[in-house]
Amino acid sequence: MKDYVIGIDIGGTFTKTGFVDRDGNIFAENSTPTDKFDSADVYLYNLVKELKKAEEQLEEPYRIVGIGIGAPNGNYHKGTIEQATNLKWKGIVPFADMMKEHYNVPVKLTNDANAAALGEKVYGGGKNMNDFVMITLGTGLGSGIIVNGSLVYGHDGFGGEQGHVGVIENGRQCGCGNKGCLETYVSAPGIKRTVFELLAANSQGSELVNYTFDELDSEIIYNAAVKGDPVALEAFEQTGKTLGKKLADTVALLSPEAIFFFGGLAKAGDFIFKPTKKWMEHYVMGIFKNKVKLIPSQLMDKNVAVLGASALIWNELDH
Amino acid sequence: MKDYVIGIDIGGTFTKTGFVDRDGNIFAENSTPTDKFDSADVYLYNLVKELKKAEEQLEEPYRIVGIGIGAPNGNYHKGTIEQATNLKWKGIVPFADMMKEHYNVPVKLTNDANAAALGEKVYGGGKNMNDFVMITLGTGLGSGIIVNGSLVYGHDGFGGEQGHVGVIENGRQCGCGNKGCLETYVSAPGIKRTVFELLAANSQGSELVNYTFDELDSEIIYNAAVKGDPVALEAFEQTGKTLGKKLADTVALLSPEAIFFFGGLAKAGDFIFKPTKKWMEHYVMGIFKNKVKLIPSQLMDKNVAVLGASALIWNELDH
Repeated sequence: MKDYVIGIDIGGTFTKTGFVDRDGNIFAENSTPTDKFDSADVYLYNLVKELKKAEEQLEEPYRIVGIGIGAPNGNYHKGTIEQATNLKWKGIVPFADMMKEHYNVPVKLTNDANAAALGEKVYGGGKNMNDFVMITLGTGLGSGIIVNGSLVYGHDGFGGEQGHVGVIENGRQCGCGNKGCLETYVSAPGIKRTVFELLAANSQGSELVNYTFDELDSEIIYNAAVKGDPVALEAFEQTGKTLGKKLADTVALLSPEAIFFFGGLAKAGDFIFKPTKKWMEHYVMGIFKNKVKLIPSQLMDKNVAVLGASALIWNELDH
Repeated sequence: MKDYVIGIDIGGTFTKTGFVDRDGNIFAENSTPTDKFDSADVYLYNLVKELKKAEEQLEEPYRIVGIGIGAPNGNYHKGTIEQATNLKWKGIVPFADMMKEHYNVPVKLTNDANAAALGEKVYGGGKNMNDFVMITLGTGLGSGIIVNGSLVYGHDGFGGEQGHVGVIENGRQCGCGNKGCLETYVSAPGIKRTVFELLAANSQGSELVNYTFDELDSEIIYNAAVKGDPVALEAFEQTGKTLGKKLADTVALLSPEAIFFFGGLAKAGDFIFKPTKKWMEHYVMGIFKNKVKLIPSQLMDKNVAVLGASALIWNELDH
């Protein structure tokens, strides 16, 4: 009898699913739309239908031992998805309970970055670490924090929001309602905004003058940096400085062994790692200097969100 | 047979000790000088002599079940005191091991603010909380962080340094070597420095013009604030704003149930609590607004450092 955990990663556009075994192998992977459905009920009905269909690909005999879900604004303590700005269904949705009506197994839910951190802990570079931080750099800046070997959910279940620490008073408008949050500077849209600021100040010698705001993305900026474009290079430098400075604060609070980076912007390699490391070391308190490793996620090319979601269950079965 | 843990709080000038029972009652309290001794060996020899003398006050039969020590730059993992700037003995001192040569019991050591946080957890307002932060406001700003019911020591044993997150680039000189750390603004010396900045900008109507830099202290500032002195009131407002803004970051990372305050400056009551709360709520991410309690330590008038040091042992015996 083979045991699987269903890992579910709910994104704004697509939902990715897979059946994950104890060793982190993913079977019957699938992707289904999220934004096609206006209500959580109808969305869930379709999702379960897809899961049952995917199950047909699994070899008998097997059993489903649990379901782990990564979702925006996922509340671990309550199993709810609350006021998620990038989902169509608003309010407080008791998603874990709703799922249990279809699968009578333990269902655990947290936000996607927390799930990614747990994935790194169970299957990735954090296997032998008790204290580390996972930073996901995509359309936002998400984070998951591992302390004493466990995820930090915090009192209300929403802990680990590194993206929403303050950088600049009355700075850039953030999707969370505040201004000047870290993710408005350090994320794929963040570096684009920085490029536009830099072009406004001095566009000389940059090929990035040829892109509209809507056209420009972090891949174009990366490709320009590779060719030595001065604005692209300065944008990475500034992004790394902003990130490094705030990570110095996080290190003072938590003294992690490592900080992992995942996501599109993290693939920019040295362009983002070098300035981040340089400025983190510059700003961090003396006793922590040259102690904390900054490293790419060891699950970079895998479906970390699905793996991490499944780790919500596997990790608890282990303890 | 009564069980005691020896609680030891090593300060720069004095070392406080006591024999603490399971319920947090302190017996045979004592205070001995720290700075009279140039080497850790001689200091320890004297400390142990004093402890043995104090033991004579305890009623037989009893036993010592452990020793807990709070010390500046105390490393929990290694039991060492490392490069403490306010102690005469430098380098890395294996203090726990040295103590074990005199008392053959478990010896645990951490920094004073971590010990205070554990005291709050075992004996104070944090008894029923799994996630909270303890801030000690004295000659510096110390902190101890409880996550998932346990202290955050971090990978290297020095976690929980809220006082050394950055406030202002190239700001005030900090004892840690960096510039602009939170404790240079928010601490007893910090508010004094703020008063001098404010006097330099506009001294009109303030009685604080009558004090030299060496004379002025946070109690004088508090007494002036009570009488409505405009500079004293503005100094508390600015101190609370700086603190509240940085606590908003800490809340986003850790989602604590409460933040406790201990120490001289915390006794200023509403003068410090009101602006701190106001600005923390102003800056914090929406999902955390009006969720986190700011409250005075419930051990304010007790010897929290000795209690907290003893809690290092009692807490482990409980688990």
